Amino acid sequence: MPMTYPEQAIADALAAIAWNADGLVPAIAQEAATGEVLMLAWMNAEAVRETLASGRVCYWSRSRRALWRKGETSNQIQHLKGFLIDCDGDTLLLRVHQEGVACHTGRRNCFFRELSGDGMVINQEVVVNPKMLYANKNNT
Amino acid sequence: MPMTYPEQAIADALAAIAWNADGLVPAIAQEAATGEVLMLAWMNAEAVRETLASGRVCYWSRSRRALWRKGETSNQIQHLKGFLIDCDGDTLLLRVHQEGVACHTGRRNCFFRELSGDGMVINQEVVVNPKMLYANKNNT
Repeated sequence: MPMTYPEQAIADALAAIAWNADGLVPAIAQEAATGEVLMLAWMNAEAVRETLASGRVCYWSRSRRALWRKGETSNQIQHLKGFLIDCDGDTLLLRVHQEGVACHTGRRNCFFRELSGDGMVINQEVVVNPKMLYANKNNT
Repeated sequence: MPMTYPEQAIADALAAIAWNADGLVPAIAQEAATGEVLMLAWMNAEAVRETLASGRVCYWSRSRRALWRKGETSNQIQHLKGFLIDCDGDTLLLRVHQEGVACHTGRRNCFFRELSGDGMVINQEVVVNPKMLYANKNNT
Protein backbone atom coordinates (compact mmCIF):
# COMPACT_ATOMS: atom_id res chain seq x y z
CA MET A 1 0.00 0.00 0.00
CA PRO A 2 1.20 3.54 -0.65
CA MET A 3 1.91 5.64 2.40
CA THR A 4 -0.10 8.80 3.00
CA TYR A 5 0.12 11.28 5.85
CA PRO A 6 -2.33 13.49 7.74
CA GLU A 7 -2.33 17.26 7.28
CA GLN A 8 -0.42 18.03 10.48
CA ALA A 9 2.39 15.63 9.57
CA ILE A 10 2.60 17.19 6.12
CA ALA A 11 2.90 20.63 7.72
CA ASP A 12 5.72 19.33 9.95
CA ALA A 13 7.59 17.96 6.94
CA LEU A 14 7.19 21.17 4.95
CA ALA A 15 8.49 23.20 7.90
CA ALA A 16 11.58 20.98 8.22
CA ILE A 17 12.72 21.47 4.62
CA ALA A 18 15.38 24.06 3.75
CA TRP A 19 14.27 25.13 0.28
CA ASN A 20 16.84 26.56 -2.11
CA ALA A 21 16.61 30.05 -3.63
CA ASP A 22 14.19 28.72 -6.25
CA GLY A 23 11.95 27.13 -3.62
CA LEU A 24 13.08 23.63 -4.52
CA VAL A 25 14.74 20.69 -2.79
CA PRO A 26 16.43 17.66 -4.42
CA ALA A 27 14.73 14.30 -3.78
CA ILE A 28 16.46 10.93 -4.15
CA ALA A 29 14.12 8.07 -5.03
CA GLN A 30 15.22 4.70 -3.66
CA GLU A 31 13.45 1.39 -4.21
CA ALA A 32 12.27 0.44 -0.74
CA ALA A 33 12.52 -3.32 -1.25
CA THR A 34 16.06 -3.45 -2.63
CA GLY A 35 17.88 -0.20 -1.82
CA GLU A 36 18.40 0.53 -5.53
CA VAL A 37 18.84 4.27 -6.18
CA LEU A 38 16.43 5.01 -9.00
CA MET A 39 16.76 8.73 -9.78
CA LEU A 40 17.08 12.23 -8.42
CA ALA A 41 14.54 14.94 -9.17
CA TRP A 42 13.35 18.17 -7.57
CA MET A 43 10.31 19.09 -5.52
CA ASN A 44 8.65 22.33 -4.54
CA ALA A 45 6.27 22.66 -1.59
CA GLU A 46 3.25 21.80 -3.71
CA ALA A 47 4.92 18.63 -5.01
CA VAL A 48 5.84 17.55 -1.46
CA ARG A 49 2.31 18.22 -0.27
CA GLU A 50 0.72 16.27 -3.10
CA THR A 51 3.13 13.35 -2.69
CA LEU A 52 2.48 13.05 1.04
CA ALA A 53 -1.28 13.44 0.73
CA SER A 54 -1.71 11.05 -2.20
CA GLY A 55 1.03 8.46 -1.66
CA ARG A 56 2.10 8.83 -5.28
CA VAL A 57 5.33 10.66 -5.96
CA CYS A 58 4.99 14.05 -7.65
CA TYR A 59 8.05 16.10 -8.57
CA TRP A 60 8.56 19.59 -9.94
CA SER A 61 9.84 19.65 -13.50
CA ARG A 62 12.40 22.42 -13.76
CA SER A 63 12.39 22.26 -17.56
CA ARG A 64 8.61 22.35 -17.93
CA ARG A 65 8.05 24.50 -14.84
CA ALA A 66 5.11 22.34 -13.83
CA LEU A 67 4.17 19.60 -11.40
CA TRP A 68 5.43 16.27 -12.67
CA ARG A 69 3.25 13.42 -11.51
CA LYS A 70 5.64 10.54 -12.05
CA GLY A 71 3.99 7.97 -14.27
CA GLU A 72 1.09 10.19 -15.32
CA THR A 73 1.97 9.67 -18.97
CA SER A 74 4.10 6.53 -18.81
CA ASN A 75 2.22 4.61 -16.07
CA GLN A 76 5.60 4.03 -14.39
CA ILE A 77 4.24 5.21 -11.03
CA GLN A 78 6.23 5.58 -7.84
CA HIS A 79 4.27 4.58 -4.73
CA LEU A 80 5.53 6.29 -1.60
CA LYS A 81 6.81 3.98 1.14
CA GLY A 82 8.76 6.43 3.30
CA PHE A 83 9.81 10.09 3.44
CA LEU A 84 13.10 11.18 5.04
CA ILE A 85 14.86 14.53 5.40
CA ASP A 86 18.60 14.91 5.87
CA CYS A 87 20.48 16.63 8.69
CA ASP A 88 20.57 20.01 6.95
CA GLY A 89 17.01 19.78 5.66
CA ASP A 90 18.19 20.36 2.11
CA THR A 91 17.81 16.86 0.65
CA LEU A 92 14.91 14.40 0.68
CA LEU A 93 15.09 10.62 0.49
CA LEU A 94 11.93 8.99 -0.85
CA ARG A 95 11.50 5.28 -0.31
CA VAL A 96 9.27 4.09 -3.11
CA HIS A 97 7.92 1.12 -4.91
CA GLN A 98 8.62 1.76 -8.59
CA GLU A 99 6.18 0.27 -11.04
CA GLY A 100 8.13 -0.79 -14.11
CA VAL A 101 11.07 1.49 -14.85
CA ALA A 102 12.17 4.82 -13.41
CA CYS A 103 14.18 6.13 -16.37
CA HIS A 104 12.71 7.76 -19.47
CA THR A 105 15.16 5.69 -21.53
CA GLY A 106 13.26 2.55 -20.46
CA ARG A 107 15.93 1.40 -18.04
CA ARG A 108 15.16 0.41 -14.50
CA ASN A 109 17.08 3.37 -13.01
CA CYS A 110 18.70 6.53 -14.34
CA PHE A 111 22.29 5.67 -13.34
CA PHE A 112 23.11 3.44 -16.29
CA ARG A 113 26.36 5.17 -17.24
CA GLU A 114 29.23 3.88 -15.14
CA LEU A 115 32.86 4.90 -15.25
CA SER A 116 35.34 2.15 -16.11
CA GLY A 117 39.07 2.37 -16.63
CA ASP A 118 38.30 2.85 -20.33
CA GLY A 119 35.71 5.59 -19.85
CA MET A 120 31.93 5.59 -19.54
CA VAL A 121 30.13 2.29 -20.16
CA ILE A 122 26.44 1.32 -20.15
CA ASN A 123 25.64 -0.93 -17.20
CA GLN A 124 21.93 -1.64 -17.77
CA GLU A 125 19.75 -2.94 -20.57
CA VAL A 126 16.67 -1.13 -21.82
CA VAL A 127 13.79 -3.17 -20.38
CA VAL A 128 10.86 -1.17 -21.81
CA ASN A 129 10.91 0.43 -25.25
CA PRO A 130 10.72 4.17 -24.51
CA LYS A 131 8.38 4.61 -27.48
CA MET A 132 5.92 2.46 -25.54
CA LEU A 133 6.21 4.74 -22.50
CA TYR A 134 5.26 8.00 -24.18
CA ALA A 135 2.51 8.01 -26.69
CA ASN A 136 2.19 11.74 -27.26
CA LYS A 137 3.94 13.55 -24.49
CA ASN A 138 7.54 13.99 -23.44
CA ASN A 139 7.56 13.56 -19.71
CA THR A 140 8.21 10.62 -17.43
CA MET B 1 40.64 -1.19 -2.24
CA PRO B 2 39.56 2.27 -3.36
CA MET B 3 38.91 2.69 -7.04
CA THR B 4 41.00 5.11 -9.07
CA TYR B 5 40.82 5.94 -12.76
CA PRO B 6 43.32 6.88 -15.46
CA GLU B 7 43.44 10.40 -16.84
CA GLN B 8 41.53 9.62 -20.04
CA ALA B 9 38.66 8.03 -18.11
CA ILE B 10 38.52 11.06 -15.83
CA ALA B 11 38.31 13.32 -18.88
CA ASP B 12 35.44 11.19 -20.24
CA ALA B 13 33.55 11.49 -16.95
CA LEU B 14 34.06 15.25 -16.74
CA ALA B 15 32.81 15.66 -20.31
CA ALA B 16 29.65 13.65 -19.55
CA ILE B 17 28.54 15.84 -16.64
CA ALA B 18 25.97 18.61 -17.13
CA TRP B 19 27.13 21.18 -14.58
CA ASN B 20 24.62 23.66 -13.18
CA ALA B 21 24.96 27.43 -13.49
CA ASP B 22 27.36 27.43 -10.53
CA GLY B 23 29.54 24.72 -12.09
CA LEU B 24 28.30 22.10 -9.63
CA VAL B 25 26.55 18.74 -9.76
CA PRO B 26 24.79 16.89 -6.90
CA ALA B 27 26.38 13.59 -5.85
CA ILE B 28 24.55 10.86 -3.94
CA ALA B 29 26.82 8.71 -1.76
CA GLN B 30 25.62 5.13 -1.38
CA GLU B 31 27.31 2.44 0.71
CA ALA B 32 28.43 -0.09 -1.89
CA ALA B 33 28.07 -3.14 0.36
CA THR B 34 24.54 -2.50 1.63
CA GLY B 35 22.81 0.02 -0.66
CA GLU B 36 22.33 2.45 2.25
CA VAL B 37 22.01 6.05 1.02
CA LEU B 38 24.46 7.98 3.17
CA MET B 39 24.24 11.62 2.06
CA LEU B 40 24.01 14.05 -0.81
CA ALA B 41 26.63 16.72 -1.42
CA TRP B 42 27.90 18.76 -4.35
CA MET B 43 30.96 18.51 -6.57
CA ASN B 44 32.70 20.84 -8.96
CA ALA B 45 35.07 19.65 -11.69
CA GLU B 46 38.08 19.82 -9.40
CA ALA B 47 36.33 17.71 -6.75
CA VAL B 48 35.36 15.09 -9.36
CA ARG B 49 38.88 15.01 -10.72
CA GLU B 50 40.46 14.60 -7.28
CA THR B 51 37.94 11.91 -6.28
CA LEU B 52 38.56 9.84 -9.40
CA ALA B 53 42.34 10.24 -9.29
CA SER B 54 42.71 9.51 -5.57
CA GLY B 55 39.90 7.06 -4.83
CA ARG B 56 38.87 9.15 -1.82
CA VAL B 57 35.70 11.18 -2.13
CA CYS B 58 36.15 14.94 -2.25
CA TYR B 59 33.15 17.28 -2.45
CA TRP B 60 32.76 21.02 -2.90
CA SER B 61 31.50 22.79 0.20
CA ARG B 62 29.03 25.43 -0.91
CA SER B 63 29.07 27.09 2.51
CA ARG B 64 32.85 27.26 2.83
CA ARG B 65 33.44 27.65 -0.92
CA ALA B 66 36.30 25.18 -0.77
CA LEU B 67 37.14 21.59 -1.60
CA TRP B 68 35.81 19.31 1.11
CA ARG B 69 37.92 16.17 1.45
CA LYS B 70 35.44 13.97 3.28
CA GLY B 71 37.04 12.73 6.49
CA GLU B 72 40.02 15.09 6.36
CA THR B 73 39.16 16.40 9.83
CA SER B 74 36.93 13.62 11.16
CA ASN B 75 38.72 10.59 9.67
CA GLN B 76 35.30 9.39 8.44
CA ILE B 77 36.67 8.78 4.95
CA GLN B 78 34.67 7.65 1.93
CA HIS B 79 36.58 5.23 -0.30
CA LEU B 80 35.34 5.27 -3.87
CA LYS B 81 33.98 1.97 -5.18
CA GLY B 82 32.09 3.13 -8.27
CA PHE B 83 31.12 6.30 -10.15
CA LEU B 84 27.87 6.59 -12.10
CA ILE B 85 26.21 9.42 -14.04
CA ASP B 86 22.47 9.65 -14.65
CA CYS B 87 20.62 9.86 -17.96
CA ASP B 88 20.64 13.66 -18.03
CA GLY B 89 24.20 13.97 -16.76
CA ASP B 90 23.07 16.21 -13.94
CA THR B 91 23.35 13.82 -10.97
CA LEU B 92 26.18 11.56 -9.82
CA LEU B 93 25.90 8.34 -7.85
CA LEU B 94 29.01 7.45 -5.88
CA ARG B 95 29.33 3.93 -4.57
CA VAL B 96 31.55 4.17 -1.52
CA HIS B 97 32.84 2.38 1.49
CA GLN B 98 32.17 4.71 4.39
CA GLU B 99 34.59 4.50 7.30
CA GLY B 100 32.64 5.10 10.50
CA VAL B 101 29.77 7.53 10.03
CA ALA B 102 28.75 9.80 7.16
CA CYS B 103 26.80 12.42 9.13
CA HIS B 104 28.34 15.29 11.09
CA THR B 105 25.84 14.51 13.88
CA GLY B 106 27.63 11.21 14.44
CA ARG B 107 24.92 9.11 12.84
CA ARG B 108 25.63 6.53 10.20
CA ASN B 109 23.79 8.47 7.48
CA CYS B 110 22.27 11.92 7.13
CA PHE B 111 18.65 10.79 6.62
CA PHE B 112 17.78 10.26 10.28
CA ARG B 113 14.59 12.33 10.26
CA GLU B 114 11.66 10.28 9.00
CA LEU B 115 8.07 11.32 8.58
CA SER B 116 5.52 9.41 10.64
CA GLY B 117 1.80 9.97 10.97
CA ASP B 118 2.61 12.13 14.00
CA GLY B 119 5.28 14.23 12.26
CA MET B 120 9.07 13.96 12.02
CA VAL B 121 10.78 11.32 14.17
CA ILE B 122 14.44 10.36 14.66
CA ASN B 123 15.15 6.93 13.16
CA GLN B 124 18.85 6.48 14.02
CA GLU B 125 21.00 6.61 17.12
CA VAL B 126 24.14 8.71 17.38
CA VAL B 127 26.95 6.16 17.10
CA VAL B 128 29.95 8.49 17.42
CA ASN B 129 29.97 11.56 19.67
CA PRO B 130 30.26 14.48 17.24
CA LYS B 131 32.64 16.21 19.65
CA MET B 132 35.02 13.32 19.00
CA LEU B 133 34.77 13.89 15.25
CA TYR B 134 35.85 17.52 15.19
CA ALA B 135 38.62 18.65 17.44
CA ASN B 136 39.06 22.17 16.10
CA LYS B 137 37.35 22.47 12.79
CA ASN B 138 33.77 22.48 11.63
CA ASN B 139 33.72 20.34 8.56
CA THR B 140 32.98 16.72 7.95
